Amino acid sequence: MLLLQANIDDMNPELCSYVGDRLFEAGANDVYWIPIIMKKGRPGVMLNVLADEAKLAQVEDIIFRETTTIGLRYMRATCHRLGRQFRKVETPWGAISVKAGYHNGTMVQFAPEFKECEQAALTYGVPLKQVYDEVRRLFLNESNN
Amino acid sequence: MLLLQANIDDMNPELCSYVGDRLFEAGANDVYWIPIIMKKGRPGVMLNVLADEAKLAQVEDIIFRETTTIGLRYMRATCHRLGRQFRKVETPWGAISVKAGYHNGTMVQFAPEFKECEQAALTYGVPLKQVYDEVRRLFLNESNN
Amino acid sequence: MLLLQANIDDMNPELCSYVGDRLFEAGANDVYWIPIIMKKGRPGVMLNVLADEAKLAQVEDIIFRETTTIGLRYMRATCHRLGRQFRKVETPWGAISVKAGYHNGTMVQFAPEFKECEQAALTYGVPLKQVYDEVRRLFLNESNN
Amino acid sequence: MLLLQANIDDMNPELCSYVGDRLFEAGANDVYWIPIIMKKGRPGVMLNVLADEAKLAQVEDIIFRETTTIGLRYMRATCHRLGRQFRKVETPWGAISVKAGYHNGTMVQFAPEFKECEQAALTYGVPLKQVYDEVRRLFLNESNN
Amino acid sequence: MLLLQANIDDMNPELCSYVGDRLFEAGANDVYWIPIIMKKGRPGVMLNVLADEAKLAQVEDIIFRETTTIGLRYMRATCHRLGRQFRKVETPWGAISVKAGYHNGTMVQFAPEFKECEQAALTYGVPLKQVYDEVRRLFLNESNN
Amino acid sequence: MLLLQANIDDMNPELCSYVGDRLFEAGANDVYWIPIIMKKGRPGVMLNVLADEAKLAQVEDIIFRETTTIGLRYMRATCHRLGRQFRKVETPWGAISVKAGYHNGTMVQFAPEFKECEQAALTYGVPLKQVYDEVRRLFLNESNN
Repeated sequence: MLLLQANIDDMNPELCSYVGDRLFEAGANDVYWIPIIMKKGRPGVMLNVLADEAKLAQVEDIIFRETTTIGLRYMRATCHRLGRQFRKVETPWGAISVKAGYHNGTMVQFAPEFKECEQAALTYGVPLKQVYDEVRRLFLNESNN
Repeated sequence: MLLLQANIDDMNPELCSYVGDRLFEAGANDVYWIPIIMKKGRPGVMLNVLADEAKLAQVEDIIFRETTTIGLRYMRATCHRLGRQFRKVETPWGAISVKAGYHNGTMVQFAPEFKECEQAALTYGVPLKQVYDEVRRLFLNESNN
Repeated sequence: MLLLQANIDDMNPELCSYVGDRLFEAGANDVYWIPIIMKKGRPGVMLNVLADEAKLAQVEDIIFRETTTIGLRYMRATCHRLGRQFRKVETPWGAISVKAGYHNGTMVQFAPEFKECEQAALTYGVPLKQVYDEVRRLFLNESNN
Repeated sequence: MLLLQANIDDMNPELCSYVGDRLFEAGANDVYWIPIIMKKGRPGVMLNVLADEAKLAQVEDIIFRETTTIGLRYMRATCHRLGRQFRKVETPWGAISVKAGYHNGTMVQFAPEFKECEQAALTYGVPLKQVYDEVRRLFLNESNN
Repeated sequence: MLLLQANIDDMNPELCSYVGDRLFEAGANDVYWIPIIMKKGRPGVMLNVLADEAKLAQVEDIIFRETTTIGLRYMRATCHRLGRQFRKVETPWGAISVKAGYHNGTMVQFAPEFKECEQAALTYGVPLKQVYDEVRRLFLNESNN
Repeated sequence: MLLLQANIDDMNPELCSYVGDRLFEAGANDVYWIPIIMKKGRPGVMLNVLADEAKLAQVEDIIFRETTTIGLRYMRATCHRLGRQFRKVETPWGAISVKAGYHNGTMVQFAPEFKECEQAALTYGVPLKQVYDEVRRLFLNESNN
């Protein structure tokens, strides 16, 4: 896996989310931005993209086409992603998926799917955090039995 | 004193230091930038300007002329600035000023003047932090006698 | 106008954009987040909401319902928004709106509408920054004649 | 309530947590730090302190004694803190307190006490997030019956 | 040495310091957090851990057990740590250690030990910055003779 | 190319720009600072330097001499810089250079030279953003014919 980085101090920040969408479309595994302070104290951002080596040319194309950077760099990184399973939980607002992550055979993470919780909160007019809490409670109640 | 604020998400950050210089020229007492996250997760900056009410029109003019904001807000703030005195310290690299701040008659702050320390470091090829340390040591040695 | 603030150190940051959407829906004039460092060095965020005094109760309701804060504060702020006009520019990718801001009768700002530029970029497969540049160029060419 | 602010660009950041502790001791209601960019692009921090007007002199004393600022400003702020109740939940790792916040008679927040969860995690060798999840689950199970 | 990184956008930030303590206990050489902006503009944090390759499994275990990440990555890094010596300085508040760092045989750094300065400040009711200044002055006075 | 990093939590931030200048002088290709949160929640900064391997010793010397860090680390990075050409544009305020960047034979970037635009804005009393806009417009008008 490659980690590509480009420091940008002269781009309209409105473009950031659009650039991120294009990079995910081109096969990037992750895209994130780090606030940095550049030459002469300018507040800039560093674009970070994780991508397979096979996608390097495409990702570079998008970075140069869509941002204002005139250079980028990349480093080799080893990635470790947990095995994942999805499970449905029945809630008062319909079934909602929970993504569970496994490390050495043990479940170490679980997280309600954001999009589905958001949809439930909007449809039923409940606070989003309450949907999250309820999904987590029900998921744990099931796991404990 | 007024604290003026403008959120900016569509300006080339290269302009920040120039904008700051113009605002100080127009009589602003302080100018600083806060990294913020705006609508749709855009990384923006909030320009902050402290200025006397009498300077409001001039400061507003510069903010609208030199940045890309279409609005600003201001709040009333009470400022408390320490009484200050300058003293010279003789160092191996010439005399360097120290700014001392007094609170209720007691010296609570002292700081070597950055510009003079920087100049000494450049002229004599010593690390800047060493100049700072030496000025502080000599200033304290004198104060202790 | 009121500026409401709530410091939050125990909320899942995934919720931020959702909270922002609900606040805009309830009539907030602006919503933004400032990264802060809280007690015991915890990385938190400060939610900031600008709203008319008349909306105070509704905005408070949403802040308490949708975030995990147990307190908020507000200050009075005076806002100055530029008068604005919209103008259409004919581009190779259709007509795109430009928002112009006027200060004391002079146009001091102009900005292509993000959503329309984004749509043009996606539809025609051109870099978004090129759409922006072209809209700005055409707008200025017209204004100069 | 007053919100005091001091911009600091020449202080060893190691001192921040110590300064915060002294301010809480002197009766501050909240203390937090905002990363900012100051004159000449220097990365600084803005100290923020919320305190009753009656504590102004003491809080000022500590700010001037313990930080390197030579000035501060303050604004008046109106605070709204939720009514709070504490409840104990029986867990496999002993009883743990939950702080609940009430807005217009409805419970809108609940949060396990950090210190007690941390102690349980350390004593029993369980992940802290698991303690949190379990306390929240048990609290909600009780509230639902 | 390995640099491990995990991007986290759905964890209660209260957990950060606890996670850091566990990682140091497990043999990490350094732990720090970088504020980042993730997918959909979410304000997240990137956990960074420096550790010997021999500690990789233990450090990974803690990251997956104690944070909410479902993936991490690591890069190889070469570290250069200065040779260090500790020296005691006699102060009005007892002996306080100073850590000196040597580069190519020359002392390039010296820093009073934070914990000891903090203890002296608390015990004697002196400003912490004054303790620092005094320790540095005495250390330099000795070195100059 | 090497990417050197040093985490700093006990340095006066005033020194940052000076340190950057010295590093560029010593042949660094880029220097930038990332705000980070260090042990015990201290707000620190991470110095980042990009430099050729041949410059490693000199860059290390400056980092240890001019900052307060007692360690640094470096990683190998591959850099990709666009081919660049400079072109002059005739403006009402004199000729101003534009730097253009080429990727696979296509111009993907162009940026007016900051220093020249700033000089024009200061000399003629025009807003800097207007100089930028005009240079970009004229550059594009020429490219389109």
